Amino acid sequence: MRLQDVQIVLVRPKRTGNVAAACRAMKNMGLSRLLLVEPPEDLATSEDRALAYGAFDVLDGARRAPTLADAVAETTVVLATSGKHEGAAQTARDAAEGLRARAEGEGAAFVFGPEASGLTRAELDRCHGLVHIPTSAEHASLNLAQAVMVVAYEVFLALGGPGGPAPAHAEDAPVPAGELEAVLADLRAALLDIGFLNPQNPDAILAELRRLLARSRPTAREATLLRGLARQIRWSGRP
Amino acid sequence: MRLQDVQIVLVRPKRTGNVAAACRAMKNMGLSRLLLVEPPEDLATSEDRALAYGAFDVLDGARRAPTLADAVAETTVVLATSGKHEGAAQTARDAAEGLRARAEGEGAAFVFGPEASGLTRAELDRCHGLVHIPTSAEHASLNLAQAVMVVAYEVFLALGGPGGPAPAHAEDAPVPAGELEAVLADLRAALLDIGFLNPQNPDAILAELRRLLARSRPTAREATLLRGLARQIRWSGRP
Repeated sequence: MRLQDVQIVLVRPKRTGNVAAACRAMKNMGLSRLLLVEPPEDLATSEDRALAYGAFDVLDGARRAPTLADAVAETTVVLATSGKHEGAAQTARDAAEGLRARAEGEGAAFVFGPEASGLTRAELDRCHGLVHIPTSAEHASLNLAQAVMVVAYEVFLALGGPGGPAPAHAEDAPVPAGELEAVLADLRAALLDIGFLNPQNPDAILAELRRLLARSRPTAREATLLRGLARQIRWSGRP
Repeated sequence: MRLQDVQIVLVRPKRTGNVAAACRAMKNMGLSRLLLVEPPEDLATSEDRALAYGAFDVLDGARRAPTLADAVAETTVVLATSGKHEGAAQTARDAAEGLRARAEGEGAAFVFGPEASGLTRAELDRCHGLVHIPTSAEHASLNLAQAVMVVAYEVFLALGGPGGPAPAHAEDAPVPAGELEAVLADLRAALLDIGFLNPQNPDAILAELRRLLARSRPTAREATLLRGLARQIRWSGRP
């Protein structure tokens, strides 16, 4: 994977100053692809835009998406940054180094939540993995732009140097997040049909299946296999 | 050397917002000793003090010195950060890791110059070494507080942990191959039952599922989930 395959996704950022400072940090570290979900209303006019010094192209070239799911539909690896150190989180350094082995043209997204509240449970579950920035226990809450800085810095160190990415093999390429969601939607319907998922709360188990499948990075062939399996489960369960 | 032996020295910073944001970054990374040479005049009153969220003790506890030489007189290792990549500079990561070998109680200082102009030649020469933060050639100029963030982060990773990677959580450990085979045996029986696998040749498809699951390295929890799923498929397929 190359630097240009990496996106930063800011979900509902409250402060234009943080978005602007994040743009400068990205540009410092060779990243240019910014995706915004519900950005602040004064993004085009605020004086805090000045914090994007040298990176107004990143700020003004940011794409927008109505939801996180839309933002990452084309992306292969979707990693949520979380202040809470949940069990399965990998460090920013390990996550960045993990991208090095991935093929050119695969996309990765690092997702950052709003300043105070962070990503919702549903948004965290929508991602394929969690990334944690190590901090002092005494004050673990990083400013949003500072968190983007650390992640971008690690990505630059991992991908910015010499030593090219793995070549892409079309038939081995993992499917993007949108296609993985289609697989999960089929599995969801099938597993509800046979009573494996609780209709009151199907999504907790489904989130576990999503993380499991996302880690294995299914190919198009495997996605087709899994969708066929889901169809067969539904068919066999019919009275 | 320990985290408390490391100082951050800001020389003639222009903006209170940068000093305040640097305090938060320091506190996030377990650093508390800030030394200021000619700080901005509105440091005690500016609204931008809010950027020191959670770290007002660092901001208000900062010591002052009239010159860089006074500031670092008691310090063993004095490292200047420089945007220019001069020949003798070491990276922030190497510099931080180099501190690990130093004795407890020795002091280290990372020195940062003013936002636009940087340290003077005489100040650079006063330091024992140069530290460089790797950046994209296209936009090498980091915001002052962002530069403090990266250095503090590297210092924390080098000195803040127990040394070496964090221990793995037992519940995240992947199951051994034997348990993965038990999952596959259950899936095999279930998928034969519902006619997804061809009884004449079930193992080709099963091998694909094995590769897919092995890549994701399921945990014990996930293995149990998959075996429960296989049971439910069999049960639902019964006439």
